[in-house]
Amino acid sequence: MHVSEAEWTDIEKKIARTAFDQAYKREIEALLKQVQKEASTLVELDGLWQLHDFLSARRHEIEGKYDYQYSALLFVFAGLVKDGWLHVNELEGLSKDKLSKVSALARM
Amino acid sequence: MHVSEAEWTDIEKKIARTAFDQAYKREIEALLKQVQKEASTLVELDGLWQLHDFLSARRHEIEGKYDYQYSALLFVFAGLVKDGWLHVNELEGLSKDKLSKVSALARM
Repeated sequence: MHVSEAEWTDIEKKIARTAFDQAYKREIEALLKQVQKEASTLVELDGLWQLHDFLSARRHEIEGKYDYQYSALLFVFAGLVKDGWLHVNELEGLSKDKLSKVSALARM
Repeated sequence: MHVSEAEWTDIEKKIARTAFDQAYKREIEALLKQVQKEASTLVELDGLWQLHDFLSARRHEIEGKYDYQYSALLFVFAGLVKDGWLHVNELEGLSKDKLSKVSALARM
Protein backbone atom coordinates (compact mmCIF):
# COMPACT_ATOMS: atom_id res chain seq x y z
CA MET A 1 0.00 0.00 0.00
CA HIS A 2 3.04 2.28 0.21
CA VAL A 3 3.14 4.91 -2.52
CA SER A 4 6.37 6.81 -3.03
CA GLU A 5 6.50 10.54 -3.75
CA ALA A 6 7.36 9.79 -7.41
CA GLU A 7 3.91 8.28 -7.83
CA TRP A 8 2.16 11.57 -6.96
CA THR A 9 1.57 14.09 -9.75
CA ASP A 10 1.84 17.79 -8.96
CA ILE A 11 -1.93 18.15 -9.10
CA GLU A 12 -2.39 15.20 -6.76
CA LYS A 13 0.11 16.73 -4.38
CA LYS A 14 -1.91 19.94 -4.23
CA ILE A 15 -5.14 18.06 -3.66
CA ALA A 16 -3.51 15.97 -0.97
CA ARG A 17 -2.02 18.96 0.82
CA THR A 18 -5.31 20.84 0.83
CA ALA A 19 -7.22 17.82 2.11
CA PHE A 20 -4.58 17.13 4.75
CA ASP A 21 -4.59 20.73 6.00
CA GLN A 22 -8.37 20.83 6.06
CA ALA A 23 -8.65 17.64 8.08
CA TYR A 24 -5.98 18.89 10.48
CA LYS A 25 -7.82 22.18 10.94
CA ARG A 26 -11.09 20.37 11.67
CA GLU A 27 -9.58 17.93 14.13
CA ILE A 28 -7.62 20.60 16.00
CA GLU A 29 -10.61 22.93 16.24
CA ALA A 30 -12.73 20.09 17.57
CA LEU A 31 -10.03 19.16 20.08
CA LEU A 32 -9.70 22.74 21.33
CA LYS A 33 -13.47 22.99 21.77
CA GLN A 34 -13.59 19.66 23.59
CA VAL A 35 -10.81 20.69 25.98
CA GLN A 36 -12.48 24.02 26.66
CA LYS A 37 -15.75 22.28 27.39
CA GLU A 38 -14.18 19.69 29.69
CA ALA A 39 -12.07 22.30 31.47
CA SER A 40 -15.11 24.46 32.11
CA THR A 41 -16.75 21.67 34.12
CA LEU A 42 -13.70 20.76 36.24
CA VAL A 43 -14.49 20.56 39.94
CA GLU A 44 -11.81 18.26 41.31
CA LEU A 45 -8.24 17.19 40.86
CA ASP A 46 -9.11 13.72 39.54
CA GLY A 47 -10.90 15.33 36.64
CA LEU A 48 -7.89 17.53 35.94
CA TRP A 49 -5.54 14.54 35.83
CA GLN A 50 -8.00 12.75 33.55
CA LEU A 51 -7.80 15.76 31.26
CA HIS A 52 -4.01 15.57 31.48
CA ASP A 53 -4.06 11.87 30.52
CA PHE A 54 -6.40 12.67 27.66
CA LEU A 55 -4.06 15.40 26.38
CA SER A 56 -1.03 13.10 26.66
CA ALA A 57 -2.76 10.51 24.50
CA ARG A 58 -4.11 12.99 21.95
CA ARG A 59 -0.76 14.77 21.62
CA HIS A 60 1.02 11.51 20.94
CA GLU A 61 -1.61 10.50 18.41
CA ILE A 62 -1.80 13.85 16.60
CA GLU A 63 1.95 14.38 16.41
CA GLY A 64 2.31 10.93 14.89
CA LYS A 65 -0.65 11.14 12.57
CA TYR A 66 -0.04 14.51 10.94
CA ASP A 67 3.42 13.71 9.70
CA TYR A 68 3.27 14.56 5.99
CA GLN A 69 5.10 11.74 4.19
CA TYR A 70 3.95 10.68 0.73
CA SER A 71 4.82 7.08 1.50
CA ALA A 72 2.26 6.99 4.33
CA LEU A 73 -0.29 9.48 3.05
CA LEU A 74 -2.90 6.98 1.89
CA PHE A 75 -2.92 5.41 5.35
CA VAL A 76 -3.24 8.84 6.92
CA PHE A 77 -6.13 9.76 4.63
CA ALA A 78 -7.85 6.45 5.31
CA GLY A 79 -7.63 7.09 9.04
CA LEU A 80 -8.94 10.64 8.63
CA VAL A 81 -11.88 9.40 6.54
CA LYS A 82 -12.61 6.66 9.06
CA ASP A 83 -12.56 9.12 11.95
CA GLY A 84 -14.73 11.63 10.13
CA TRP A 85 -12.18 14.42 9.69
CA LEU A 86 -12.12 14.07 5.92
CA HIS A 87 -14.67 13.03 3.33
CA VAL A 88 -13.40 10.84 0.54
CA ASN A 89 -14.98 13.32 -1.93
CA GLU A 90 -12.37 15.86 -0.83
CA LEU A 91 -9.72 13.63 -2.38
CA GLU A 92 -11.30 13.75 -5.83
CA GLY A 93 -8.62 14.26 -8.46
CA LEU A 94 -6.32 11.61 -7.04
CA SER A 95 -5.88 8.56 -9.25
CA LYS A 96 -8.59 5.92 -9.08
CA ASP A 97 -6.06 3.52 -7.69
CA LYS A 98 -5.20 5.84 -4.79
CA LEU A 99 -8.85 6.60 -4.09
CA SER A 100 -9.82 2.96 -3.99
CA LYS A 101 -6.90 2.22 -1.65
CA VAL A 102 -8.03 4.98 0.71
CA SER A 103 -11.62 3.74 0.63
CA ALA A 104 -10.60 0.15 1.22
CA LEU A 105 -8.28 1.07 4.12
CA ALA A 106 -10.94 3.31 5.65
CA ARG A 107 -13.35 0.38 5.83
CA MET A 108 -10.90 -1.82 7.74
CA MET B 1 15.32 18.94 60.34
CA HIS B 2 13.63 15.54 60.10
CA VAL B 3 11.01 15.00 62.79
CA SER B 4 9.71 11.48 63.31
CA GLU B 5 6.06 10.69 63.99
CA ALA B 6 6.89 10.01 67.64
CA GLU B 7 7.75 13.66 68.07
CA TRP B 8 4.23 14.81 67.17
CA THR B 9 1.61 14.96 69.90
CA ASP B 10 -1.98 14.03 69.09
CA ILE B 11 -3.00 17.68 69.20
CA GLU B 12 -0.15 18.65 66.89
CA LYS B 13 -1.18 15.90 64.51
CA LYS B 14 -4.71 17.31 64.32
CA ILE B 15 -3.41 20.84 63.73
CA ALA B 16 -1.04 19.59 61.06
CA ARG B 17 -3.68 17.58 59.27
CA THR B 18 -6.11 20.50 59.21
CA ALA B 19 -3.46 22.90 57.93
CA PHE B 20 -2.28 20.42 55.33
CA ASP B 21 -5.80 19.78 54.04
CA GLN B 22 -6.58 23.49 53.96
CA ALA B 23 -3.47 24.32 51.94
CA TYR B 24 -4.18 21.45 49.58
CA LYS B 25 -7.74 22.67 49.06
CA ARG B 26 -6.54 26.20 48.31
CA GLU B 27 -3.85 25.14 45.90
CA ILE B 28 -6.08 22.72 44.01
CA GLU B 29 -8.91 25.24 43.73
CA ALA B 30 -6.47 27.84 42.40
CA LEU B 31 -5.05 25.33 39.93
CA LEU B 32 -8.50 24.35 38.65
CA LYS B 33 -9.41 28.01 38.17
CA GLN B 34 -6.14 28.71 36.38
CA VAL B 35 -6.62 25.78 34.01
CA GLN B 36 -10.20 26.81 33.28
CA LYS B 37 -9.07 30.35 32.53
CA GLU B 38 -6.22 29.25 30.27
CA ALA B 39 -8.38 26.69 28.49
CA SER B 40 -11.05 29.29 27.80
CA THR B 41 -8.58 31.39 25.79
CA LEU B 42 -7.13 28.52 23.72
CA VAL B 43 -7.03 29.31 20.00
CA GLU B 44 -4.27 27.07 18.67
CA LEU B 45 -2.58 23.75 19.18
CA ASP B 46 0.67 25.22 20.50
CA GLY B 47 -1.26 26.74 23.38
CA LEU B 48 -2.89 23.40 24.10
CA TRP B 49 0.46 21.62 24.23
CA GLN B 50 1.78 24.37 26.52
CA LEU B 51 -1.18 23.65 28.79
CA HIS B 52 -0.32 19.96 28.60
CA ASP B 53 3.31 20.67 29.58
CA PHE B 54 2.09 22.85 32.44
CA LEU B 55 -0.21 20.07 33.70
CA SER B 56 2.60 17.50 33.47
CA ALA B 57 4.82 19.67 35.65
CA ARG B 58 2.12 20.57 38.16
CA ARG B 59 0.97 16.96 38.48
CA HIS B 60 4.47 15.79 39.23
CA GLU B 61 4.96 18.58 41.75
CA ILE B 62 1.61 18.19 43.51
CA GLU B 63 1.74 14.40 43.74
CA GLY B 64 5.18 14.68 45.30
CA LYS B 65 4.41 17.57 47.59
CA TYR B 66 1.19 16.37 49.19
CA ASP B 67 2.57 13.11 50.47
CA TYR B 68 1.65 13.13 54.17
CA GLN B 69 4.72 11.85 56.01
CA TYR B 70 5.52 13.17 59.48
CA SER B 71 9.23 12.98 58.76
CA ALA B 72 8.89 15.48 55.92
CA LEU B 73 5.98 17.56 57.16
CA LEU B 74 7.97 20.58 58.33
CA PHE B 75 9.55 20.87 54.88
CA VAL B 76 6.13 20.56 53.26
CA PHE B 77 4.68 23.25 55.52
CA ALA B 78 7.64 25.54 54.86
CA GLY B 79 7.09 25.18 51.12
CA LEU B 80 3.37 25.84 51.48
CA VAL B 81 4.03 28.96 53.57
CA LYS B 82 6.63 30.16 51.08
CA ASP B 83 4.26 29.66 48.16
CA GLY B 84 1.39 31.36 49.95
CA TRP B 85 -0.91 28.35 50.36
CA LEU B 86 -0.59 28.37 54.14
CA HIS B 87 -0.06 31.08 56.72
CA VAL B 88 2.27 30.21 59.56
CA ASN B 89 -0.47 31.34 61.99
CA GLU B 90 -2.50 28.34 60.87
CA LEU B 91 0.13 26.11 62.46
CA GLU B 92 -0.31 27.67 65.91
CA GLY B 93 -0.39 24.95 68.52
CA LEU B 94 2.66 23.15 67.17
CA SER B 95 5.70 23.27 69.44
CA LYS B 96 7.84 26.40 69.27
CA ASP B 97 10.68 24.34 67.92
CA LYS B 98 8.57 23.07 65.00
CA LEU B 99 7.20 26.53 64.27
CA SER B 100 10.61 28.12 64.20
CA LYS B 101 11.88 25.39 61.89
CA VAL B 102 8.99 25.99 59.49
CA SER B 103 9.56 29.74 59.56
CA ALA B 104 13.29 29.37 59.00
CA LEU B 105 12.85 26.94 56.11
CA ALA B 106 10.19 29.13 54.54
CA ARG B 107 12.63 32.02 54.37
CA MET B 108 15.27 30.00 52.52
